[in-house]
Amino acid sequence: MTVPRIGVTLGDPGGVGPEIVLKALAGDYTLPKAVYVLFGNSHIVAGTARALGFRFGPEAWGPEKGGEPGIFLSDIPSPADDPAPARPDGKSGEASFRFFEAAADAARSGSLDAVVTAPVSKTAWKLAGIPWRGHTEYLESFYPGAIMSFWSEKLKVALLSHHLPLREALGRVRRDALLDFFRALSRDAGRVRGGPREFLVPGLNPHAGEGGLLGAEEEGEVRPAIEAARAEGLNISGPYPPDTVFRLALGRPDVMVAALYHDQGLVAFKLEAFESGVNATLGLPFVRTSPDHGTAFDIAGRGVASPLSMVEAIRLAGRFSASVS
Amino acid sequence: MTVPRIGVTLGDPGGVGPEIVLKALAGDYTLPKAVYVLFGNSHIVAGTARALGFRFGPEAWGPEKGGEPGIFLSDIPSPADDPAPARPDGKSGEASFRFFEAAADAARSGSLDAVVTAPVSKTAWKLAGIPWRGHTEYLESFYPGAIMSFWSEKLKVALLSHHLPLREALGRVRRDALLDFFRALSRDAGRVRGGPREFLVPGLNPHAGEGGLLGAEEEGEVRPAIEAARAEGLNISGPYPPDTVFRLALGRPDVMVAALYHDQGLVAFKLEAFESGVNATLGLPFVRTSPDHGTAFDIAGRGVASPLSMVEAIRLAGRFSASVS
Repeated sequence: MTVPRIGVTLGDPGGVGPEIVLKALAGDYTLPKAVYVLFGNSHIVAGTARALGFRFGPEAWGPEKGGEPGIFLSDIPSPADDPAPARPDGKSGEASFRFFEAAADAARSGSLDAVVTAPVSKTAWKLAGIPWRGHTEYLESFYPGAIMSFWSEKLKVALLSHHLPLREALGRVRRDALLDFFRALSRDAGRVRGGPREFLVPGLNPHAGEGGLLGAEEEGEVRPAIEAARAEGLNISGPYPPDTVFRLALGRPDVMVAALYHDQGLVAFKLEAFESGVNATLGLPFVRTSPDHGTAFDIAGRGVASPLSMVEAIRLAGRFSASVS
Repeated sequence: MTVPRIGVTLGDPGGVGPEIVLKALAGDYTLPKAVYVLFGNSHIVAGTARALGFRFGPEAWGPEKGGEPGIFLSDIPSPADDPAPARPDGKSGEASFRFFEAAADAARSGSLDAVVTAPVSKTAWKLAGIPWRGHTEYLESFYPGAIMSFWSEKLKVALLSHHLPLREALGRVRRDALLDFFRALSRDAGRVRGGPREFLVPGLNPHAGEGGLLGAEEEGEVRPAIEAARAEGLNISGPYPPDTVFRLALGRPDVMVAALYHDQGLVAFKLEAFESGVNATLGLPFVRTSPDHGTAFDIAGRGVASPLSMVEAIRLAGRFSASVS
């Protein structure tokens, strides 16, 4: 039996990352059978396990540990203070980046099928001089076609562009970029067991432009891209009015909305799945998932953080990887 | 006792308008004490009442009928066929426009405190050669500062601009226009009994521009307008990240989101209150409300249309008018 190899990063040492990772991996949750490789620091992991009352002694990971399900540790030196402060901190930022970088390296070289990332503080990354604003931007530096997507029971959404001023995001709504987006979505989201098979595309303008009266992008860019995608056999339709398309997708696990800019998708997603969804980066040779919440410094270190979104992120990584192995 | 005078239009004769108006006015719903003036055609009204099994014989309206609660009819000649076809039709479009025009005339001249409009077909208006796309645009031709707003139990939203291409809507996000918007909202929404007293403003860009990294409008336009409004004593705050501001407002009757463009507000509103909310035009010397659904030609004439959104529209008109009388 070949099981998927899933890397899990520890996140910011001062946030809830270490706690939710250990609760997810060492708690009573049903997780996919996999080789789990924890990318973090052995000292932080041991301290977190002790504080939570978990017996947790993962073996050291090595290339020879590829075949059987289990939990392993890739021990990364950490510059973070012990205990790490529960606020944005340069040393913690550097530590969380190193954990992630090591996991991404392993995935890029083909040693992992998926990476699940615990929350980092982008302010801490900035304090540490890390030039990327987050996980997605780092991955984009290797894979410019990386796509942010958001998954929950009720709604699934992918974004054509993400951290751009709205004015610039409008400029990305172009036929070629849309067709690439649709192809990547169909390929990557479409390979998930039980995942979306149909993609709905909102227009850019009110009422999807109303035949050109309320904007030209629908007829000039969006519709031609949808038609080209359909001619290739992709199950993509639209453009739908942006203020009703999300209702068409609600509660249908086989449907994903291919949103044209950050807030078009996320206003809807965050209403339907606030901090309980999973973020997945598509358009990579592997998949990266993460819980859709932050470091939650305000409750860090108190043992009260819920690992449910992290558990769902691990399960989704497993569903992506199942088709790989 | 002076009661408010509320005009109610019949809407498209081929849609669900006549049915939901009669169900609302002649059914078992608790409505505010008011002089209700139905703007429609006596023949259509009588036919609808007969089909629904209602005894409904409103008196003819006249200026002398101002003082006591009751239901009156302003009988408008109608060019619509009998029965009117349950699809967009030029004669029906002209009829529904005439009903509305008469009610708007009465409100503009001060004979009414509020107008509640039943659904019209904008395609029918176009077929009839009516140069306005809908109720709001007609009112805007007299009152350029008219504001579209959407009301439900769970969420209230107003729009800085409505039927504009998104690119043009971005250009409306300017300090002066925002300050006018905030003043009109505070004045008009703020005068509703039990209505919003606090207004939350989303940013235009992802994460509200993140201090300028993701767009300049927040610091250059939105924040200065909010500060100017607060200096005038208005209870307005922001800019908040667009993808979380709606959660802050959910379930709080005293809060309204002042959205910066059509779909920013309506993606959220239509998820939370699909076809059950009420549309209110603010920024007029009177108020106009309407149910937040269309003519529903597919179920028209079958007696099955729900009047609940119309009832809520009438109740909201009453709450607006209470402070007037």
